[in-house]
Amino acid sequence: MGYVVAVVGATGVVGREMIAILDESSLPIDRLVLLASEKSAGMSILFRGEQVSVTALTDSAFVGVDYALFSAGGSVSARFAPIAAQQGCVVIDNSSHFRMDPSVPLVVPEVNPHDAQHHAGIIANPNCSTAQLVMILKPILDHVGLTRVSVATYQSVSGAGKGALLELENQSRANLNGTDYPPKVFGHPIAFNVIPHIDSFLENGYTKEEMKVTNETRKLLGTPTLPVAATAVRVPVFIGHSEVVTLQTERSLTVEEAKTIWQHSAGVVVMDDPTSATYPTPRELAGKNEVAVGRIRLDLSQENGLVCWCVGDNLRKGAALNAVQILQLLTHSNTRMIHGA
Amino acid sequence: MGYVVAVVGATGVVGREMIAILDESSLPIDRLVLLASEKSAGMSILFRGEQVSVTALTDSAFVGVDYALFSAGGSVSARFAPIAAQQGCVVIDNSSHFRMDPSVPLVVPEVNPHDAQHHAGIIANPNCSTAQLVMILKPILDHVGLTRVSVATYQSVSGAGKGALLELENQSRANLNGTDYPPKVFGHPIAFNVIPHIDSFLENGYTKEEMKVTNETRKLLGTPTLPVAATAVRVPVFIGHSEVVTLQTERSLTVEEAKTIWQHSAGVVVMDDPTSATYPTPRELAGKNEVAVGRIRLDLSQENGLVCWCVGDNLRKGAALNAVQILQLLTHSNTRMIHGA
Repeated sequence: MGYVVAVVGATGVVGREMIAILDESSLPIDRLVLLASEKSAGMSILFRGEQVSVTALTDSAFVGVDYALFSAGGSVSARFAPIAAQQGCVVIDNSSHFRMDPSVPLVVPEVNPHDAQHHAGIIANPNCSTAQLVMILKPILDHVGLTRVSVATYQSVSGAGKGALLELENQSRANLNGTDYPPKVFGHPIAFNVIPHIDSFLENGYTKEEMKVTNETRKLLGTPTLPVAATAVRVPVFIGHSEVVTLQTERSLTVEEAKTIWQHSAGVVVMDDPTSATYPTPRELAGKNEVAVGRIRLDLSQENGLVCWCVGDNLRKGAALNAVQILQLLTHSNTRMIHGA
Repeated sequence: MGYVVAVVGATGVVGREMIAILDESSLPIDRLVLLASEKSAGMSILFRGEQVSVTALTDSAFVGVDYALFSAGGSVSARFAPIAAQQGCVVIDNSSHFRMDPSVPLVVPEVNPHDAQHHAGIIANPNCSTAQLVMILKPILDHVGLTRVSVATYQSVSGAGKGALLELENQSRANLNGTDYPPKVFGHPIAFNVIPHIDSFLENGYTKEEMKVTNETRKLLGTPTLPVAATAVRVPVFIGHSEVVTLQTERSLTVEEAKTIWQHSAGVVVMDDPTSATYPTPRELAGKNEVAVGRIRLDLSQENGLVCWCVGDNLRKGAALNAVQILQLLTHSNTRMIHGA
């Protein structure tokens, strides 16, 4: 007695990762429905030993579907998620469209699993940078309270999709051969460069990406007034987001206490040993389910401050893995929650 | 009536930049003495239309030399700078060896020019990340006071020398061809990766590079107790360091006031217009003399806080240019100080 599960945006970078993670999981899936735009229809993708055809997304695509994982952009979610929900399908949506809707729960299973129980057919998956951030903030909040969070990100290009991966690859190759490769996906060259601009700018000088970190962190942690500021920067890395996280706690916290807290946090792994140059890097974390934290030390610039370096696979915990974990939560499945695999 | 100027470490990445900047300058130089290790002796480098031979550094190399710019590492400076000074040569040292010595001034000409007047033969040039940082901190300190500074860096590989430039190039090419290229200069692969580790680790969990930012910033600004914390991260960029700078001011400051202050600061250029995606990136700033600041906005996480994005050419303002500017300061030359060229 398994489920019928759909993946919307099945041929995208995150969609493919969702299929891979569903494949790895022991979730009972009777049928996998792969949906995408007209131009991807007809492709087929291997799932648990069988080729599954991709079909075009239509209004009737969700009939008989129990759960749908959406990752096809905000406008597709805006239009089709309510249709799916109306047909009795529960949507787990990776776009930003519904995240701040008060009637839609925003969930990271290790952080606020109970919020997933009260939904009206749509549950939102957080922004990639935010997902890994709250994984390390929540245990600190629970133990000693949080009064302030400041983040500088080092975000890989895969967060911007297939075209961005290709642009970094082709532009790097061209530049190494001494030729230009005009940027298309990014506003500036990304090869051998860093770009302090992700998503569009808002009135307050922050980008949408940066305000997602502020607003989604508050919603996920249930701390609507927690001061959170982010600067989101794109770096020439294929997969894996890194973050310098500066936090201030209500009660004082030693480095050793912080390490112990994180060592006991589900889905978090501590990689921190200066004597052996041990700390996480995105190349090491790509393909992994855990969020890794290292470079843990007292903040020399503020009282009760801690600084650390947090790295995660933006396609996994930052997107596809978290969506599948929400699905596991909803199915109350006895299957082991995938983390720290 | 010109000077005899020596460059120690003439064949290194910074040494070559020093020669290029001396070449561009209108400093009256009668003779340029190029010094390096035995193995580089015999090479020749073009300076103002003539080939100048590189000779081996010896104890007697500074006889008749008025000024020597050192950039050959801490141990070379430790041994030869005092010898040069004893021979009546004034040393401008780019290594970290003398920077925190209370008897040695540490100088950024736009920030603390008067400190250069009281020396005993050696003047220190700051760390690359620190030089560009104080360029933007000093005008804010002067106008509204500073109570706290927090920095996350995005540092290019050229800060680690020629071998590092080659490693990024060769490793990137190898990875794009699907092959490995084991790291030698860096402890982890730098191609398509970021590494939160520059220089060696200290007892407090910070790296030497990070503590240079803290200590040198305090010395340069003349604020020995200013709280400053840094996280120094290497990124796969050839030239140009970037920094997310979070600062807290004594008196409140609007974004417009900060922009105006920086627009009137020598050597600083404001590149900040969200409507046209204008902000500095290291690829744009490479080869430029200015320190650029953009993404200026209020810090959502603290009162009287400001966040910005600061980019500079680490070989220029971060090293060679600043050294030549100190030389100009010392010669009281009427030549125009090179900045904002």
